[in-house]
Amino acid sequence: MKLILLRHGESTWNKENRFTGWTDVELSDAGVAEAKEAGKVLSEADFDFDVCFTSYLKRAVHTLNYVLAETNNDHLPVIKTWKLNERHYGALQGLNKSDTAKKYGEEQVKIWRRSFDVRPPALDNNDERNPAFCKTYKEVDKSQLPLAESLKDTIARVLPYYESEVKPYLAAGKNVLIVAHGNSLRALIMKLENMSEKDILEFNLPTAVPLVYEIGEDLSVKNKKFLGDEKVVAEKMNKVANQGKAK
Amino acid sequence: MKLILLRHGESTWNKENRFTGWTDVELSDAGVAEAKEAGKVLSEADFDFDVCFTSYLKRAVHTLNYVLAETNNDHLPVIKTWKLNERHYGALQGLNKSDTAKKYGEEQVKIWRRSFDVRPPALDNNDERNPAFCKTYKEVDKSQLPLAESLKDTIARVLPYYESEVKPYLAAGKNVLIVAHGNSLRALIMKLENMSEKDILEFNLPTAVPLVYEIGEDLSVKNKKFLGDEKVVAEKMNKVANQGKAK
Repeated sequence: MKLILLRHGESTWNKENRFTGWTDVELSDAGVAEAKEAGKVLSEADFDFDVCFTSYLKRAVHTLNYVLAETNNDHLPVIKTWKLNERHYGALQGLNKSDTAKKYGEEQVKIWRRSFDVRPPALDNNDERNPAFCKTYKEVDKSQLPLAESLKDTIARVLPYYESEVKPYLAAGKNVLIVAHGNSLRALIMKLENMSEKDILEFNLPTAVPLVYEIGEDLSVKNKKFLGDEKVVAEKMNKVANQGKAK
Repeated sequence: MKLILLRHGESTWNKENRFTGWTDVELSDAGVAEAKEAGKVLSEADFDFDVCFTSYLKRAVHTLNYVLAETNNDHLPVIKTWKLNERHYGALQGLNKSDTAKKYGEEQVKIWRRSFDVRPPALDNNDERNPAFCKTYKEVDKSQLPLAESLKDTIARVLPYYESEVKPYLAAGKNVLIVAHGNSLRALIMKLENMSEKDILEFNLPTAVPLVYEIGEDLSVKNKKFLGDEKVVAEKMNKVANQGKAK
């Protein structure tokens, strides 16, 4: 079986270098092109997948839609869940990363972006961006909805979902595609590759490059590769790593 | 509760006036514009819906994707089923409707298009277009897949699906959006409006105009309306009615 992870293409706020989190921004034109390219790469590799998971956020949903269209897989089941949403960035959402670095220092921003268990400042309960007030989450138990998350918090919602909802498909011999976000996918990667907290802190997932895991009968990872041009993958990983710098 | 029916926007083969059936053609540029417009109309009417159904065919799936994007509903669950596919047009698939009318006569074409229980000539079992050979239907019981369908055959797969899969959502108080095809939607409309075979034969559903049914507690229809400009709706219905003429 194969498990394919795909981070959404560039969004309008990635482009503006702002903390996005649960803000539901669109793909940029470059992000649309990246998403289509990811679909082409998957088509050329001739990977069949059987079921798709994505988050509630449109930059992930739309990336998946472009991949399904490019690979002639529009008929496939798509399961959407807030459990695969990006890490909730609390009160940092909307702030420019460089400005935040100038104000709080690069190290503090790196801690907020790349630490394991430090939460950014939380949204105020009455903030209109509180997910509990948002139509999108109206079916979700309000007590589960965050106002800010550390990577550890994100892992704590992603992994149980993976265990209970995704793994049964792999166990049934299905190939699974997950289109999600930098941090919800890092949660999965940490688990799949048995990474330490330090390793995952340094790991940068490129946008819109399919990461393919071969999964064995015992549901452990047997092999791993990025699909696509090696140089492009390296450049993309480097670009993500540099986003928190003051410039 | 509300049940909203939406026929997909113009496809590249609607434009060429060819019998499409299960051929998996794209939306035309005009069809994309129609789909986005349907989303705008739904947004302006401020209709919330909770769950969406569509077929396995990309002209319906993409129409739904555009509607979800326009109405800020990308997070909503989407259930895809071949049971909502267009009527299977058998060996007519791919033929131009005007040419077919010249060859067989307008009346024969009208019978094939608009009769209740006459099947068009079937695909040969070995035809590469047999759905049993197609990756899209690999999870479907082969014995259920048609080589040609009458409207009666289409009804026979659509209605049990509606009863067992759609109605429970209405019974639970949910608003449901179904994006599908001329004939799979006529099957539903015949049932919802208690139409006779003759009535449904004369009924033409316009493309990409939301048809909204108010559903009562007893799950019967209390009210019905098309959303959008009345003149546009009338023009669209007339256009569909004229497609089978030799010109």
